[in-house]
Amino acid sequence: MSAQNPVFIPGPTNMPEALRKACDMPTIDHRSAVFGEILAPCLAGVRRVLKSERAQVFLFPSTGTGGWETAISNTLSPGDKVLAARHGMFSHRWIDLCQRHGLSVQVVEAPWGAGLPADRYAEILAADTAHEIKAVLATHNETATGVRSDIAAVRRTLDAAGHPALLLVDGVSSIASMDFRMDQWGVDVAVTGSQKGFMLPAGLAIVAFSDKAWRATETAKLPRTFFDVRDMGQSYARNGFPYTPPVGLMNGLRLSTEMLLKEGLENVFARHRRIADGVRAAVAAWEMPLCAEGPELWSDTVSAIRTPEGFDATKIVTHAAAKYGVAFGVGLGEVAGKVFRIGHLGSLTDVMMLSGLATAEMAMADLGLPVRLGSGVAAAQEVYRASEAKLEKAAA
Amino acid sequence: MSAQNPVFIPGPTNMPEALRKACDMPTIDHRSAVFGEILAPCLAGVRRVLKSERAQVFLFPSTGTGGWETAISNTLSPGDKVLAARHGMFSHRWIDLCQRHGLSVQVVEAPWGAGLPADRYAEILAADTAHEIKAVLATHNETATGVRSDIAAVRRTLDAAGHPALLLVDGVSSIASMDFRMDQWGVDVAVTGSQKGFMLPAGLAIVAFSDKAWRATETAKLPRTFFDVRDMGQSYARNGFPYTPPVGLMNGLRLSTEMLLKEGLENVFARHRRIADGVRAAVAAWEMPLCAEGPELWSDTVSAIRTPEGFDATKIVTHAAAKYGVAFGVGLGEVAGKVFRIGHLGSLTDVMMLSGLATAEMAMADLGLPVRLGSGVAAAQEVYRASEAKLEKAAA
Amino acid sequence: MSAQNPVFIPGPTNMPEALRKACDMPTIDHRSAVFGEILAPCLAGVRRVLKSERAQVFLFPSTGTGGWETAISNTLSPGDKVLAARHGMFSHRWIDLCQRHGLSVQVVEAPWGAGLPADRYAEILAADTAHEIKAVLATHNETATGVRSDIAAVRRTLDAAGHPALLLVDGVSSIASMDFRMDQWGVDVAVTGSQKGFMLPAGLAIVAFSDKAWRATETAKLPRTFFDVRDMGQSYARNGFPYTPPVGLMNGLRLSTEMLLKEGLENVFARHRRIADGVRAAVAAWEMPLCAEGPELWSDTVSAIRTPEGFDATKIVTHAAAKYGVAFGVGLGEVAGKVFRIGHLGSLTDVMMLSGLATAEMAMADLGLPVRLGSGVAAAQEVYRASEAKLEKAAA
Amino acid sequence: MSAQNPVFIPGPTNMPEALRKACDMPTIDHRSAVFGEILAPCLAGVRRVLKSERAQVFLFPSTGTGGWETAISNTLSPGDKVLAARHGMFSHRWIDLCQRHGLSVQVVEAPWGAGLPADRYAEILAADTAHEIKAVLATHNETATGVRSDIAAVRRTLDAAGHPALLLVDGVSSIASMDFRMDQWGVDVAVTGSQKGFMLPAGLAIVAFSDKAWRATETAKLPRTFFDVRDMGQSYARNGFPYTPPVGLMNGLRLSTEMLLKEGLENVFARHRRIADGVRAAVAAWEMPLCAEGPELWSDTVSAIRTPEGFDATKIVTHAAAKYGVAFGVGLGEVAGKVFRIGHLGSLTDVMMLSGLATAEMAMADLGLPVRLGSGVAAAQEVYRASEAKLEKAAA
Repeated sequence: MSAQNPVFIPGPTNMPEALRKACDMPTIDHRSAVFGEILAPCLAGVRRVLKSERAQVFLFPSTGTGGWETAISNTLSPGDKVLAARHGMFSHRWIDLCQRHGLSVQVVEAPWGAGLPADRYAEILAADTAHEIKAVLATHNETATGVRSDIAAVRRTLDAAGHPALLLVDGVSSIASMDFRMDQWGVDVAVTGSQKGFMLPAGLAIVAFSDKAWRATETAKLPRTFFDVRDMGQSYARNGFPYTPPVGLMNGLRLSTEMLLKEGLENVFARHRRIADGVRAAVAAWEMPLCAEGPELWSDTVSAIRTPEGFDATKIVTHAAAKYGVAFGVGLGEVAGKVFRIGHLGSLTDVMMLSGLATAEMAMADLGLPVRLGSGVAAAQEVYRASEAKLEKAAA
Repeated sequence: MSAQNPVFIPGPTNMPEALRKACDMPTIDHRSAVFGEILAPCLAGVRRVLKSERAQVFLFPSTGTGGWETAISNTLSPGDKVLAARHGMFSHRWIDLCQRHGLSVQVVEAPWGAGLPADRYAEILAADTAHEIKAVLATHNETATGVRSDIAAVRRTLDAAGHPALLLVDGVSSIASMDFRMDQWGVDVAVTGSQKGFMLPAGLAIVAFSDKAWRATETAKLPRTFFDVRDMGQSYARNGFPYTPPVGLMNGLRLSTEMLLKEGLENVFARHRRIADGVRAAVAAWEMPLCAEGPELWSDTVSAIRTPEGFDATKIVTHAAAKYGVAFGVGLGEVAGKVFRIGHLGSLTDVMMLSGLATAEMAMADLGLPVRLGSGVAAAQEVYRASEAKLEKAAA
Repeated sequence: MSAQNPVFIPGPTNMPEALRKACDMPTIDHRSAVFGEILAPCLAGVRRVLKSERAQVFLFPSTGTGGWETAISNTLSPGDKVLAARHGMFSHRWIDLCQRHGLSVQVVEAPWGAGLPADRYAEILAADTAHEIKAVLATHNETATGVRSDIAAVRRTLDAAGHPALLLVDGVSSIASMDFRMDQWGVDVAVTGSQKGFMLPAGLAIVAFSDKAWRATETAKLPRTFFDVRDMGQSYARNGFPYTPPVGLMNGLRLSTEMLLKEGLENVFARHRRIADGVRAAVAAWEMPLCAEGPELWSDTVSAIRTPEGFDATKIVTHAAAKYGVAFGVGLGEVAGKVFRIGHLGSLTDVMMLSGLATAEMAMADLGLPVRLGSGVAAAQEVYRASEAKLEKAAA
Repeated sequence: MSAQNPVFIPGPTNMPEALRKACDMPTIDHRSAVFGEILAPCLAGVRRVLKSERAQVFLFPSTGTGGWETAISNTLSPGDKVLAARHGMFSHRWIDLCQRHGLSVQVVEAPWGAGLPADRYAEILAADTAHEIKAVLATHNETATGVRSDIAAVRRTLDAAGHPALLLVDGVSSIASMDFRMDQWGVDVAVTGSQKGFMLPAGLAIVAFSDKAWRATETAKLPRTFFDVRDMGQSYARNGFPYTPPVGLMNGLRLSTEMLLKEGLENVFARHRRIADGVRAAVAAWEMPLCAEGPELWSDTVSAIRTPEGFDATKIVTHAAAKYGVAFGVGLGEVAGKVFRIGHLGSLTDVMMLSGLATAEMAMADLGLPVRLGSGVAAAQEVYRASEAKLEKAAA
């Protein structure tokens, strides 16, 4: 590993200079007015990134996993039934968390590489006329397989069934990188973290609650204190925090949302799309399939690439790290050894991405895979040449 | 508030330059070997700071509150009985957390300013012949009142009663600043955070489990996933983390423990004692009483100072912040408005402390309290002149 | 020495967080447009700080000494006569530099502690009817003695004599901290550095030329290349630099001037005056005289304090550094061992200053001087309490 | 320009994280002992990098240009004759500097792209039986043309002629990146800067004097104060500096030399050679000639690449900056518009270099040059795959 090279893992991402400096803050008194000047724009900024008018945003010194726990423990009670699909490691882990917290999870199994099976959800929800299902879980972007699912479709199934279940969405590796419409999609709880699209260090769970989810906190019986959004909300109302806040990270989030909104969310999404298109062009040139089953599922933040049968895909990752000092992602769970992953989210340029693709080519060639050097790079170069990207100005 | 002045709140503390730089780390792949090179010395270093040979140390992206939750949710089951004393805001909050998580808390009320009433614990434990009490909580240093309790005495009451309850200790504002002897005192779970004696930003709960506490994780039924120490332990065994770790903060902790151990724990404690002695000399010169009921209770990390009847102590804090840009701590809960607090822990020199005392004097004089300017400073100067402090070398 | 404590030397000064971060810049291409976005506001900002409408500002990777060399080598020729007063170490050094460069310096000796003897200048200039004197040197603020001289008075002597000599002024330890009026005082070359009032690291000579000084560059014959202002000016005209510029420092200067102008120059000067008043009140309480011969000479950036006969003043400095980790300035040259100096310029608060005064008291008491602990602090506290200082907001 | 991408200019170079942090230092008292702990290892470290046993090293807050001025003004007198070759912009500029300082320069003109014509030097020195030539100038690495000259050959010509002239060498863009043997080559003054092989910001001239050069300082009559090495040496002897030193940069240099020596100088040189080989392989694949006339002249720190007749090479640089945010170097002087330059020195990995080559390809293709995308990258990949580079560990 070399700290000089960019990382190409699907988070934590490379961090912009300005965000590192915003996080590296001297100690302030978090009970003073200065804290409110950091907190308020964070909450407002995240809300805009989520394309929501009214969602209540909460920030926990935690991670996406803590965000999942926040989502369920504030809205559900022991024994409650939830509907979830398992089609990758991260959807799997959320299911596991629910089960550990005493929920009854109806799991829809789907292939790792498929999207969330909205049609199966539709059947189950339609059949649940007693409305025993209290919440529906959805993983917007399966980081393990590079698959983006259609959250609007999940909302449609709920609406079609006239089902009142809450819609809880894991947007950890999509929010702030790919289009996410909390209000339009009727998302009740959205979960993400600081270390992906927000380009910050890990350490913050970022969770947003709709009005409906907020009302559910009144009856939810799962135990919670650290992750209690009502305590959090009461503290926010007086510019406070229920315990010691991670002020530096929050100052980073304040600036991150400012940078994202200044660039323009659609520009941010287009930038991720362009860089992802280059990666996909390279993968096609290598004649290797993506794990994602079809183009409509392609993630713009991470690509999982299937290597030939009999080849241990993990070797690419360990070799690239050991010989070239570059980090890619290994396959996890069912696709361990079958895929390697290229993260392409956060603070990244076309130029940085080309160095990742060039490295992947060297590693694959070193390991005997039939990849022609320069072939993927050339394909990506064609994509990047075609863009009329506006460059951010260097820090002045 | 002015970022140029030191803070004198009881945490987060002022941060040494070197620790800020250690935390401000570029992104690395937390699944690479580099991560293990950060994790392992963190765990070993914390263990030594706790004066433990065998405790298992766990680091959560969280805070002390999350540490409390870790302590109980990994060792106890719903309905379990625990014994706790309430003698300040932080002991109160831990009790509240236990209650929210469905534990049955036997609360011993004590004056805010008193130490933990070990004699009452002794009576209760002796009477609990059925061993219904599963855990005993103790707050080593009540940050709200500046009171240090005698944890060894709690251990003696347990031993005298032959009681098997676990001893869970909140050492958030004592560990790494005041003597803490996990093994000698028979502490089963010790809880602290990054932002006090470790002189880091907030964002890490640091929790240590004895063998006995570890065994309790097997039967504990409180729900947990984010705070599950068994997941954490399994990940550590392969130099991993169960979710995305806050690598920069951990890198800071690695260096923090290195710095503390290099200075020598007894020297660190003596430094805190010396600075605290200066503060107490100033308070005496001001002819104001400490909240702590007696010298044996004096905390070396925070002093809560009682202001005259009829005076709103909080005004000192708001005035010092507004006019002089200096942060002190307000009174909390029962002692709100009755005390103000001076934090004197973490990265602090005699010289910095004098500026805090001089500021307190100006603020009190401005507000009409009968404090002679320079009087407290002079008393502290006498204390500091007498020391033969070894100076740390400036960063080279 | 301890990096935790502020420094109280008369430069380099304590640095604001924001300026350190502005200087700590990643590498950019100094031949790209980004460079111009840093250079232009630097030049404009310095010009405003100098209260000049038309002066040409030049920045050299150098120090104040290089600034002195720039001033003379661009305006004078070998053998040229210059008039200068020696009344401290820094006026002495500039004279020495002139002599080494082959100038004929008419030196007016004055006591170390006196101001520039404008009356003697007047006599000499009036007598120089042949206008052999080509330049008059003046040290606005003698850092060695804490003496501010009256530059307007020097201008008046020149005007009264109808003398065409250039007026070259060393404003290293005054500019950006004390009032400086380049245009109104008819200063032809003003010299300063980055590490004093601009609160930056050492490394930049900042020099400004009047139109008259600029015209003198055409005939000046002293050799120069590195310090040639014409090369510099030509490069600036195309947003360039004649060699590799210290971009980070310049980026710091850009922000420094922005911060100074936002605070308001008169507010900056008043802040320095207030902090200096506190120091002088403390010195009076200690019953020790300033080196400066009278109040009209008092410098607002540095105070040189005379210690009793027979006492080695340098001991205070070495003892304060060794025992308390605090840096003061020693006496230099003629006043070595007779004075110690307290720097009070740059990024400093009343609160920080009090810690310096408290330390000086401890050091003097330790060394047996008859200083009552707290006495100087109390006197300064009275000064600082009386102010209605507006606090800068902490970095958000 | 994008601060996210590496730069590929021939200095300032990309900076390692650790060096940026070493430079970003809080203010210390440069008259305290701490300064000596920074200065001494700097001087010793630079001496070892120069492969010298006895050279005296001097550090000026300046740049390479200031280093040139130091070299001549401390060793020569007005009217002295020096021998120099002009075969690029930087050798040209040094000649110009000499002339401005009143030296009589015998200039040997050589093609831009040729090395220093040692045979012409030999003739001239042999003919100079009166030893009127006092110094011989040599540019080790012409940054403008990417040409390395043979300094040992210059030494041989001097020795063969029994000529006592000093050998003054510009090693600005070679030292610390390419082999430099001060003692073995009999170099009398070596000049470099902080911003090339030392991987630091610009701001330090680094100059080393042999015993013979040191003796010359006694008789040299060129005026000097700021650049006087005798003042500097006297100050160093008591761990001081003749004026305010740039402490942060020096702290960076201390660490830089430590890092270079820990990696091993031969490993550093081999790394530069390997990365340069990759660049040269790419250039060959593009079927474009280097400016350097032959392989024996190839520089390992910068390659100047000739573009086809009629094509304005500068366009590549401006286009790459504007569209891709990547900085390359333009042609200067005689080769302006005819070459563009790729810097490949300092803190650089194979992987970073590939992104530079990929960008150059895109830019050239965009501008209509007949470059096949991926062709140069593939050629460089072959070079980099073949290496068994040891990776530096990421900062922990």
